[in-house]
Amino acid sequence: MGDNSEATLEESAKNIEEQVGRVVEQAKELQDSAASFISKTSSDEQSLRHRALSLDSSIRRLRSLLHSLLSHNLLQPKLADKLQEELERATCVVVDGDAASFLPGKAHGGFLRMFLGPINVRASRKDVQLKVKEEYNSYRDRTALLFLFFPSTLLILRSWIWDGCLPAFPVQLYQAWLLFLYTGLALRENILRVNGSDIRPWWIYHHYLAMLMALVSLTWEIKGQPNCAQKQSGVQLFLQWAMMQGVAMLLQNRYQRQRLYTRIALGKAKRMDVVWGETAGVDGQLWLLCPILFILQGFEAYVGLLLLKTALVGVVSEWQVFFCGIVLVIMAVGNFSNTVQTLMVKSRFKAKMKRSKSKQDLQ
Amino acid sequence: MGDNSEATLEESAKNIEEQVGRVVEQAKELQDSAASFISKTSSDEQSLRHRALSLDSSIRRLRSLLHSLLSHNLLQPKLADKLQEELERATCVVVDGDAASFLPGKAHGGFLRMFLGPINVRASRKDVQLKVKEEYNSYRDRTALLFLFFPSTLLILRSWIWDGCLPAFPVQLYQAWLLFLYTGLALRENILRVNGSDIRPWWIYHHYLAMLMALVSLTWEIKGQPNCAQKQSGVQLFLQWAMMQGVAMLLQNRYQRQRLYTRIALGKAKRMDVVWGETAGVDGQLWLLCPILFILQGFEAYVGLLLLKTALVGVVSEWQVFFCGIVLVIMAVGNFSNTVQTLMVKSRFKAKMKRSKSKQDLQ
Repeated sequence: MGDNSEATLEESAKNIEEQVGRVVEQAKELQDSAASFISKTSSDEQSLRHRALSLDSSIRRLRSLLHSLLSHNLLQPKLADKLQEELERATCVVVDGDAASFLPGKAHGGFLRMFLGPINVRASRKDVQLKVKEEYNSYRDRTALLFLFFPSTLLILRSWIWDGCLPAFPVQLYQAWLLFLYTGLALRENILRVNGSDIRPWWIYHHYLAMLMALVSLTWEIKGQPNCAQKQSGVQLFLQWAMMQGVAMLLQNRYQRQRLYTRIALGKAKRMDVVWGETAGVDGQLWLLCPILFILQGFEAYVGLLLLKTALVGVVSEWQVFFCGIVLVIMAVGNFSNTVQTLMVKSRFKAKMKRSKSKQDLQ
Repeated sequence: MGDNSEATLEESAKNIEEQVGRVVEQAKELQDSAASFISKTSSDEQSLRHRALSLDSSIRRLRSLLHSLLSHNLLQPKLADKLQEELERATCVVVDGDAASFLPGKAHGGFLRMFLGPINVRASRKDVQLKVKEEYNSYRDRTALLFLFFPSTLLILRSWIWDGCLPAFPVQLYQAWLLFLYTGLALRENILRVNGSDIRPWWIYHHYLAMLMALVSLTWEIKGQPNCAQKQSGVQLFLQWAMMQGVAMLLQNRYQRQRLYTRIALGKAKRMDVVWGETAGVDGQLWLLCPILFILQGFEAYVGLLLLKTALVGVVSEWQVFFCGIVLVIMAVGNFSNTVQTLMVKSRFKAKMKRSKSKQDLQ
């Protein structure tokens, strides 16, 4: 080392004691400010939480009061409508605005606790919550492509290279991927729920069932020659169904994403209107999506029943076949009834919107 | 409904408009306070983050300066020791105190992002972080008991009821449980790491490997008669190893928990001393724990090599046997070298402590 840097070092040696002292002092100061910031913030948070909670219960009380006043004919319908709308708007502010993060969140649920322990996965800010939802949608997009790619590759290779008989390893790799995928989706959906998403519980249960089925199918031996076509008919049907599932997922994602963008755009424009615009501009796509979903659900039930038949007639005697058959049928029935319910809620909501809009136009 | 409540309702009808107006007003106020609280908090946080970061880099700079001064003999060793200790204490304040939550956390890592998406799992408060760690320990306690219970039950039933030949289903159930368990442990350990735990990366990789092995073993057909004993020798060895693993986990948990309690107790007494007391009072148990860990690792390697031999000699020709053998050997080697490294770090740390203590006594 040269004389120059030696000289600089000697210079430093003189005031290093002072410098270290300053750093220790700064560390103590930082500790004090951090501690006071944390205690101040948590007491402010506490009071905001209290206010949000009491406001929420006032709104609930007034809503039920309004209801009983109406049923006793003690209120003009016109006034009641106006008051109801005002309460709706107040609810939107509390539930969809910045105050929302101070309302108690949905409980974390057993699934998240089982895998993650007691850690909090609730984002405190609304924009972070929307980002989480957006990322979930793009994750679904990516998986939908793989959902198309994996089974179609297996089926193509089966007829081109494998002479109509699937080897066990690639199928098991695919099943392991399914298990990983469904676990990830179930975890993410639980996280979305904690963050205030109104996802229907069934779709999460559906992914629990799919996880279970993927796990069981891993233990299901893929038998080859002789009579490969007969033994593998269940696997083949399942792969065909999975391809259709991929197409449906892509369509669903398009629809969901457009809904989210509408929400974000409206939220930026005027927070109060967020919920009111939820179904705007995407009605056209529902007409394409619904028939495909129903066909898919029918095919799901068909595959399930075929598996059950195979198991009961005794072509393949493993319990896994029977189990997967039952799970597929349950999933098909649940999916169907939940899709119908969602459609009914949507059409009821739209009718209500139309009524209130035509009323406004009249006034 | 009686006249009385009708009268009350009529009373309410008069002022409901006013009440609704008040609620709407309150909602707007709450929205304003929440928005200003959030923006104020995040700017305060930003400045604390900035201070913590610059203090952290000052400490680093001074430490390396001290080092080069010492190596150029420009500082008395006694003074250097004193300054070093002061820097150590400042580091403890920044890293272990309330300020720690304002330092940038460890990155979330691919594993967490893969399963959970971009959600933040970092607890902002130190006491919550310690609670997470405590819960992790009690989770490990519960699983250690199951780790003893499951394989021993399988082995007992095998000789009592199943005539020396394990049926496939209970073994697969056990393997599925292992897969779930290791996934949960890997997720929790990644979360602990994000929350500032200094867990060695190897133990997390170890659980990734264990997940992979559990997944592969699910696809491994459990064959029965004839020659059941020979075909199932791998499974049997694995179950025996798992029982030993259960005992080792229970001992390890006792040790880890005592360390954590020491930390919490010291943290309550005087936060600065948290790190200094880490190894206090648990040395005696290391003498019991280490030999057991080494025996276990030896047995792990032995089971792995036996599986490899079985696969190579050709008694069982499935690839799963070969794969599990290799993974077990890798795990044994990694566990051994990491245990040795941990012991070396501990003994070096203890020697340093002793030196500085005897120096203090002399002074």
